[in-house]
Amino acid sequence: MLDSALQFARQNKAAHLSGLCDWLRIPSISTTPEHAPDVRRAADFAAQYLRAIGMDKVQVHETTGHPIVYAEHMQPATLNLPTLLIYGHFDVQPTDPDEAWTRPPFEPTVDGDNLYARGASDDKGQAFAILAALESYLKTSGKLPVNIKVLFEGEEEITSPSLLPYIQSHADELRADAILIADQDMLDSQHPVIMWGLRGLLYAEIEVTGPARDLHSGTFGGSVDNPFNVLTRLLAQLQDGDTRRILIPGFYDTVEELTDEERALISQAPINDDVGIYLTGAPKLAGEAGYPLAERVSVRPTLDIHGIMGGFTGEGSKTVIPAKAMAKVSLRLVPHQHPGPVFEALTSYLKSLCPSTVKLDVRNIGQAVPVKVDYKHPAIQAAATAYEKGFGHKPVYLRGGGSLPIVHDMIRILNAPVVMIGFGLPDDRTHSPNEKFHLPNFYHGIETVIHYLDLFSKI
Amino acid sequence: MLDSALQFARQNKAAHLSGLCDWLRIPSISTTPEHAPDVRRAADFAAQYLRAIGMDKVQVHETTGHPIVYAEHMQPATLNLPTLLIYGHFDVQPTDPDEAWTRPPFEPTVDGDNLYARGASDDKGQAFAILAALESYLKTSGKLPVNIKVLFEGEEEITSPSLLPYIQSHADELRADAILIADQDMLDSQHPVIMWGLRGLLYAEIEVTGPARDLHSGTFGGSVDNPFNVLTRLLAQLQDGDTRRILIPGFYDTVEELTDEERALISQAPINDDVGIYLTGAPKLAGEAGYPLAERVSVRPTLDIHGIMGGFTGEGSKTVIPAKAMAKVSLRLVPHQHPGPVFEALTSYLKSLCPSTVKLDVRNIGQAVPVKVDYKHPAIQAAATAYEKGFGHKPVYLRGGGSLPIVHDMIRILNAPVVMIGFGLPDDRTHSPNEKFHLPNFYHGIETVIHYLDLFSKI
Repeated sequence: MLDSALQFARQNKAAHLSGLCDWLRIPSISTTPEHAPDVRRAADFAAQYLRAIGMDKVQVHETTGHPIVYAEHMQPATLNLPTLLIYGHFDVQPTDPDEAWTRPPFEPTVDGDNLYARGASDDKGQAFAILAALESYLKTSGKLPVNIKVLFEGEEEITSPSLLPYIQSHADELRADAILIADQDMLDSQHPVIMWGLRGLLYAEIEVTGPARDLHSGTFGGSVDNPFNVLTRLLAQLQDGDTRRILIPGFYDTVEELTDEERALISQAPINDDVGIYLTGAPKLAGEAGYPLAERVSVRPTLDIHGIMGGFTGEGSKTVIPAKAMAKVSLRLVPHQHPGPVFEALTSYLKSLCPSTVKLDVRNIGQAVPVKVDYKHPAIQAAATAYEKGFGHKPVYLRGGGSLPIVHDMIRILNAPVVMIGFGLPDDRTHSPNEKFHLPNFYHGIETVIHYLDLFSKI
Repeated sequence: MLDSALQFARQNKAAHLSGLCDWLRIPSISTTPEHAPDVRRAADFAAQYLRAIGMDKVQVHETTGHPIVYAEHMQPATLNLPTLLIYGHFDVQPTDPDEAWTRPPFEPTVDGDNLYARGASDDKGQAFAILAALESYLKTSGKLPVNIKVLFEGEEEITSPSLLPYIQSHADELRADAILIADQDMLDSQHPVIMWGLRGLLYAEIEVTGPARDLHSGTFGGSVDNPFNVLTRLLAQLQDGDTRRILIPGFYDTVEELTDEERALISQAPINDDVGIYLTGAPKLAGEAGYPLAERVSVRPTLDIHGIMGGFTGEGSKTVIPAKAMAKVSLRLVPHQHPGPVFEALTSYLKSLCPSTVKLDVRNIGQAVPVKVDYKHPAIQAAATAYEKGFGHKPVYLRGGGSLPIVHDMIRILNAPVVMIGFGLPDDRTHSPNEKFHLPNFYHGIETVIHYLDLFSKI
C-alpha cells in the first residue's frame, strides 16, 4: 500500500504541479472584502479535489466569514485505526506592494526549481502536498492506512474568526488522535523542522485624533498637538531602544523561561547571524539583548509596527497637521502570555502616556494564544521518521516564531496533540512580494505525508 | 480717479466673482507632476486677464518648473511715481483626502457668503482681488496712480524653486520701492492683519531602511530591527513630550527673543485659547511651554510630522516587517534661524541616534528663511490706512506662522520692504478639504487694494 502510493506520487508530479497551479490562480486574499468571492472559489476547488480523489462527506461549510472545507475517510470501527485530523488553509496574504512583484502574483510561473505565486508556499503548496498524498493512496489502494479528517479554512491570514465557533460546534465530528498541520518552513533544504510550539499574537490598531480636521502647519503649528508627533512618542515608549525589551508594565511577568534541556534542543539548530543576514538582507541583526538569535525568533516576545496611516504621504511637501494618525502594531507572545491581558496592559499603558490634548483609541483586531507541545509524543516522533524517509534528513526541533491562532483552540477543544511540519523554505518570501515554493520540497513533502500516514497507522 | 475705481469695483462684483471661479476651475496643483499642464493653464489665465485689462509687457516666463507670469504698468519717469511690485501665486495645494470634500474641489460653489474651492483663499482669491483692483483703475482712468509690476508664480506651494533664479536674473526689471503680497488670513472679519514677519521652514524626508525586503514578522520578528520601530524612536527624540521643546542640539541658539515692545504688540491681538479650540476643534491646545498662544503660532519654532510611508496600511492585519519607513517632517523656523544649518543639525542628531542595524537617509526637500520687517515703514503704515478704508477696521500687527519662501530672497535681492496683507480667514481651511473664501472679504479686499494704490502714490 505504501509502495504503490509512493510510486503513484513519483509518476504524477506533473499532474500535481498542474493542480496546485490551478489553485494558485485563484486570488483568495482573505483580508480584503472584495476578494471574498475568490476565497469561496478556492474553497470550492479544494472540495472538488477532495471529492474527485474519493474522500467522503465533502462539504463547503458556510460561516459568517469565508467558508470552511471538511472531508473524511473513516473505516470500520472494528479495524481500530487511529484517526488523524489534517488542517490547512487556502486563503493568502495581500500582494502589496504590487509593483515589487517581478511576475504577476496569481499567474503561477515555474523558474528552475521554484514555483512563483502568492500562496505557493503559504499555504496552498503545502496543503496541496497533503491532497496529493491522500490521492496517491486512494488512487492505488482505494483506501487510506488510517482514518482521516480534513479541515481546510479560508481565514488563517485574518486570525481564523470563524474556525473557533466551527470547532466548538463540531468537536465530536472532529475528534482525532492527533492533528497534523503542514504550514511552516524548513530551516533549509537539508533541515526539516518539527515545530513544538508557536508564538501567540496580539494585533492592535492605535489611533490618535487631534484637531477636528487637517490644519495648515504654518497657521496652527504651535497651537495644537500633532497626532503624528503624539503617536510616534507613544510608539517609541513601547520598546527600549537599547535592549529592545518591551516596556509595557508587567509584560514579561508570565513569560516562561526555557529549561536547560529545551535550551539545548533549540541551540542544535544551525541558525546563526550569517544565516540571519543572508535571509533578511539587513545591515546587521538586532533583537532582545541577552538571548541568542534562535531563541529571539521563537521563544521570546517581540513588537513590530507594520504601518502608520493618515496625513500626507504623496510626493512633495504638503505642510499639514493631520487630524488623525493610526498605527498597526503587533506583539508576538510566548507561553504563558495571553493576548487578552496583554491588550489590557497595552491599552492602560498607552492611556497613561497619552496627553489630554488628543483622543486615543486602541483596538484589538486579531489575536492568537501561544502554544507549546510535548515533542516526545509518538505522533510527533512518527513525523520525525517520516521526514527522514521523505527528505533523507533528520529534522531539527524548533519552536515557531509565527502564529497559527487556531492551534491553541484545537489542542484545548479536541484534546489532541498537534504535529507541526512543513515544506517551505525561509527565503520563500511568504507575506512578501515574489513568494515562491521550492518544487523539490513539494515532491518530498508529498512523500513525507505518504510515509507519515503509514507510520501513524502503527502508533 | 480713486472714486471712479471704487465705483467700478462695486458695480462689477458679479463679474469679478465669475472671473475668479474660472481661475479656480483649473486644478493647478504644483506638487504632483501630472498637474503641470494645469499649472500652465492657470498661468495663461492670469496673463490673459492682465492683457485684457490693459497691463503692458505681459509674459509667461518659462522656467525649469512651472511658469512665472510678469506684467507692468510704468509711467513716464518725469512723473516720479513710486513703484510697487505685487506678488501672488496661482498654484494650489493637493486635495487629499478627496473623500473629505463635500463639494468637488475644482467646481467652485457659492453657499451663502462663502465660495468653496481649492485655492479660493490660498491664493487665487486674494491674487484675483489685486487683478480686480488694477482693472478698476484701468477701466475707468486708463492708468494706475503708481507704477506697478506684477509677479505671479506657480510654485509657491512647493517652496518656489524657480522664482529665486528668476528674481536674481531680473533684479533690475523688478526693482521697486516696496513689495506687496496678499496671501494671508485676517484674525477674523473685524481684524485685518499687517504681517511684519514670517516663520521659515525646513521640510525633510527621513528614511530608515532595514531588511532587503518585507519580512514575515512571525518568522523574522526578533532577528532584525523593524524600520518603523527605529523611525518612530528617532522621531520621538525630536521633541520633548512635556515641554514640546525641540531636542535637536543647538536648535534654539540663534532664536531671537522678542523686545518688550514687540511682545506688547503681539499680545494686543485678540487670540486666546477659546478661539484656538474653536478654530482647530482640538480637545485641548498644546505647544511650547512658557509661551502664550499668540507667540507659539508666530514667533516660536515648531516641529510637525506630516505623514509616514511604507509598510502595510490596508484594511486588516498584515504581519510584515517592512523593508523601509519614511517620514515627512517639517520645522517652522524663526529669526535668526537658517534652514541650512538646521538641516545639518537635524541630520547629525538623527545619525547620532540611529543604530547601525538600519540605514538612515535624511533629505532636505524644501526650505524658507524666516523674515522680520520694520512695521513702522511708510509703505506698511499705508497698508494699515488702506485696511481701515477698505474693511472699516484698524489692523492688528502680527508675525506670520506660515512661510513664503521667496520673501526673504525678495527683500535681500530687491532691497525693498515687503508689505504683507491678506483677506483670508482662519477657518478658510487652506491646505485642507473644503477650502473656502469669505466673499465679503473678497470685495473689501478689492477696495483695500484700490485704496492702497492711492495711498502708496503719496508716500
